[in-house]
Amino acid sequence: MPTLDLATDVVTLTAAVCDIESVSLGEAALADLIEAALRPLPHLTVTRIGNSLVARTHLGRAERVVLAGHIDTVPLTMDPSNLPTVRVTEAGQEILRGRGTVDMKGGVAVMLRVAATIHEPTRDLSLVFYEAEEIDSAFNGLGLIERQRPELITDADFAVLLEPTDAAVEGGCKGTLRAEITTKGIAAHSARPWKGHNAIHDAGEILRRLTDYEPATRSVDGLDYREALNAVLISGGTATNVIPDRCVVTVNYRYAPSVSPAQAEAHVRQVFDGFEITVVDNAGGARPGLHLPAAQAFVAALDLPVEAKQGWTDVARFSAMGVPAVNFGPGDPNLAHMDDERCPTAQYLTCEEALVRWLQ
Amino acid sequence: MPTLDLATDVVTLTAAVCDIESVSLGEAALADLIEAALRPLPHLTVTRIGNSLVARTHLGRAERVVLAGHIDTVPLTMDPSNLPTVRVTEAGQEILRGRGTVDMKGGVAVMLRVAATIHEPTRDLSLVFYEAEEIDSAFNGLGLIERQRPELITDADFAVLLEPTDAAVEGGCKGTLRAEITTKGIAAHSARPWKGHNAIHDAGEILRRLTDYEPATRSVDGLDYREALNAVLISGGTATNVIPDRCVVTVNYRYAPSVSPAQAEAHVRQVFDGFEITVVDNAGGARPGLHLPAAQAFVAALDLPVEAKQGWTDVARFSAMGVPAVNFGPGDPNLAHMDDERCPTAQYLTCEEALVRWLQ
Repeated sequence: MPTLDLATDVVTLTAAVCDIESVSLGEAALADLIEAALRPLPHLTVTRIGNSLVARTHLGRAERVVLAGHIDTVPLTMDPSNLPTVRVTEAGQEILRGRGTVDMKGGVAVMLRVAATIHEPTRDLSLVFYEAEEIDSAFNGLGLIERQRPELITDADFAVLLEPTDAAVEGGCKGTLRAEITTKGIAAHSARPWKGHNAIHDAGEILRRLTDYEPATRSVDGLDYREALNAVLISGGTATNVIPDRCVVTVNYRYAPSVSPAQAEAHVRQVFDGFEITVVDNAGGARPGLHLPAAQAFVAALDLPVEAKQGWTDVARFSAMGVPAVNFGPGDPNLAHMDDERCPTAQYLTCEEALVRWLQ
Repeated sequence: MPTLDLATDVVTLTAAVCDIESVSLGEAALADLIEAALRPLPHLTVTRIGNSLVARTHLGRAERVVLAGHIDTVPLTMDPSNLPTVRVTEAGQEILRGRGTVDMKGGVAVMLRVAATIHEPTRDLSLVFYEAEEIDSAFNGLGLIERQRPELITDADFAVLLEPTDAAVEGGCKGTLRAEITTKGIAAHSARPWKGHNAIHDAGEILRRLTDYEPATRSVDGLDYREALNAVLISGGTATNVIPDRCVVTVNYRYAPSVSPAQAEAHVRQVFDGFEITVVDNAGGARPGLHLPAAQAFVAALDLPVEAKQGWTDVARFSAMGVPAVNFGPGDPNLAHMDDERCPTAQYLTCEEALVRWLQ
């Protein structure tokens, strides 16, 4: 039976965590090892929910902060497998290659190192290791905790999600709304189009409004969120000799966290006024909360530029629970899920050191 | 073994021809019966090619005309089957219902009646009963005759295709060109669209040109062909969180028979200048040839209004072989292929009588 040695350096620990395969819904073995490593630590109380773990200090500090990371990965590559990890030097830089090195077992290793080494943090800590982030959100371990034991999270003032950001700070996240804009026509033989009405031609007006659209950039807690409204799918027509009676344009609106989901929907309905609109999904963004003392101390400890997070991440789940959150973790997000997933080992150290500066 | 009794009335004969099931590629039984009915007629020489038959007079007339019809049908409906045919009276009008009553066994029955009753036509006759019109054109019996024995058709001056026209005369047909107009973009996460380029948005310009397009109406041999250019299919995008890197609009250009396929292609390339264009198929139209003596006599004998045929039909095959052609047959073309395919029986008689007036 392997164990996780939390006393080793963060790079070795990251490799060890990666080498325990934990594709979504197969996290039990890794969760067991993390639990076994955390249980002996006297300053933490550990709660297990499914294959997720919450480890908390109880020092009576003025603030409580969350560090969170998911322990699952997307599937391995097959031939060759991208596990076990390989540590190589390229152009003078040490690299760790393999599944999870970016998304996001480096972050998990950093959290384990914080658990093992900082026994008296300056802020009370809630360390959240959770399952099933990479699949259908119904399985998401953070959601499970939220439904079963929300108080394990909601008493925090601020959260850091250790998703890969190339070791930069990305605050909050934008919301995302998808809607189907539909045009309806009348089918007819394409040799006699005047007997019908062309739904694809009508969709030209939808595309015109998209092309003319000028997205806003909104400043929230000092960060600039750049909005966007785009067609992501289009589909129409039934056969090459039939005037199409239906065309559907799926649009994706990415909106600043200062815009509520209801406001986002109203905006999309206004832009496409006159068309049939079906909102398919709509998830609000997350404020970065950078005005909070814990957040300001975090940014000060890091001494790194802070950017707005453009993509939607689980920070929005924290925000929905009333806990502002930022993303900060090792690894280039563009390499997440790639066959050649890899990360300079220096980033694991950088992230660990930054969190230690903040919490110690 | 059933036989076809050509001495019976055209309505009874139509029902008999319909009741011999002959879905495409299953025409052998019907072809055998037609052959058996034609062989004994002393004024005709009969040639069989596959399951197609050509029966010709040799009277040394100044003109030769083709009557042509396909003997296959689309598949039957299942539960209940639309065979055998049913003869009913609705609102005082006698109707024949069932597969083939429109497309186009009424025309076949009229041709058989002409073969049996007009032994000395005023113009030499080439009667063409052919297989496999309803499926991939590689199987088309007319194409087979064209490749194996073209002289059986090309010595004619004029052709009447007995496809359903509601017993009106529809001259020639329009050509049809399909092309794919493609836009290419650069994929990116839809939260960061400024890192990519949206191919669906670019397709807006294609739709704008289609909406602004003003189709020509061209007069050919005295008939007006109304052109049309339409999007028939559109497709773009790969996922709801990805800026689409490709969008394809399939357009269908229906053009007058005075426009050559090469001119049609040049026109489409001009309309969509600047875009990537792939011509998928392009079949020229057919001139109606209404200036020819045989055609003028045909129209005079019918005493019916003559319209331009808007859809593409096998008259284009005759035109390509140098034989101008018109469509004239019993049945409402809008009911072709329908589960409830049906035709007023009076139309079979009308068509037979019109051809007799012309040829006798």
